[in-house]
Amino acid sequence: MAEINHRVGIAGTVEDVYHALTTNEGLSTWWTTDTAGAGDAGSIIKFRFGSGGPDFEVAELQPDKLVRWKHAGNVPETWMDTEISFLLVPEEKQTIVRFRHSNWKEATDFMAHCSTKWAVFLLSLKDAIETGTGRPFPNDIHIDHDA
Amino acid sequence: MAEINHRVGIAGTVEDVYHALTTNEGLSTWWTTDTAGAGDAGSIIKFRFGSGGPDFEVAELQPDKLVRWKHAGNVPETWMDTEISFLLVPEEKQTIVRFRHSNWKEATDFMAHCSTKWAVFLLSLKDAIETGTGRPFPNDIHIDHDA
Repeated sequence: MAEINHRVGIAGTVEDVYHALTTNEGLSTWWTTDTAGAGDAGSIIKFRFGSGGPDFEVAELQPDKLVRWKHAGNVPETWMDTEISFLLVPEEKQTIVRFRHSNWKEATDFMAHCSTKWAVFLLSLKDAIETGTGRPFPNDIHIDHDA
Repeated sequence: MAEINHRVGIAGTVEDVYHALTTNEGLSTWWTTDTAGAGDAGSIIKFRFGSGGPDFEVAELQPDKLVRWKHAGNVPETWMDTEISFLLVPEEKQTIVRFRHSNWKEATDFMAHCSTKWAVFLLSLKDAIETGTGRPFPNDIHIDHDA
């Protein structure tokens, strides 16, 4: 099994970060502006990037501490059975976000692409909280010149 | 064992990218301005970030295709025995850079930090080639508020 790991420190409270990870309004500030369905555990969040996008079931919520999603549906296929978690750790000057996208069958080129792209979106989350302006899709930073 | 994987597409030739990965001049445009020792296989490259930094031995060079480094010395300690590789794949509009930092003992918080930071530096490499201006240390994007 392969895993994507990231870690960013955000100058904001755990409450700010938790809000950005658990509400449509918050998620829309940094991942994609087309986000619907966020809510309590069991909710299915639909993230759309133009023509399509992934669904995630909210698997676990520990307020201001942990957000865990299980991939739902089959888009993209290689994300089936994967999980994403955001662990929040308060420090004096910042909230640490420890990100994991786990349970990949193997470290494919697409996984490597997603690893880089998750870093881009976590920096977007950081900017959204620190400056009020993230770079969610469709205003995200492109990491290749396909299409 | 744990591994960091990234993938970026750079609007430049494989020759441009290979030069940026194998010469002091090129490496200084995107990772750290304080780079010395780059050369043929067997060379020890010294990357410095203010007070210190890692050394890497050039383990393998396949011109315009592959660059592979083995960590040398003991800075940082958790990088000992790790390897880094850059595989270059030419496409019509870009050169794909497939990056691996492999052989980590485990997926620690520091590894997660490095994973995010490598994405930042690979985007710096992309900008250096595409725009002429990367963000090498000490002008790199900070991903936390420590120190």
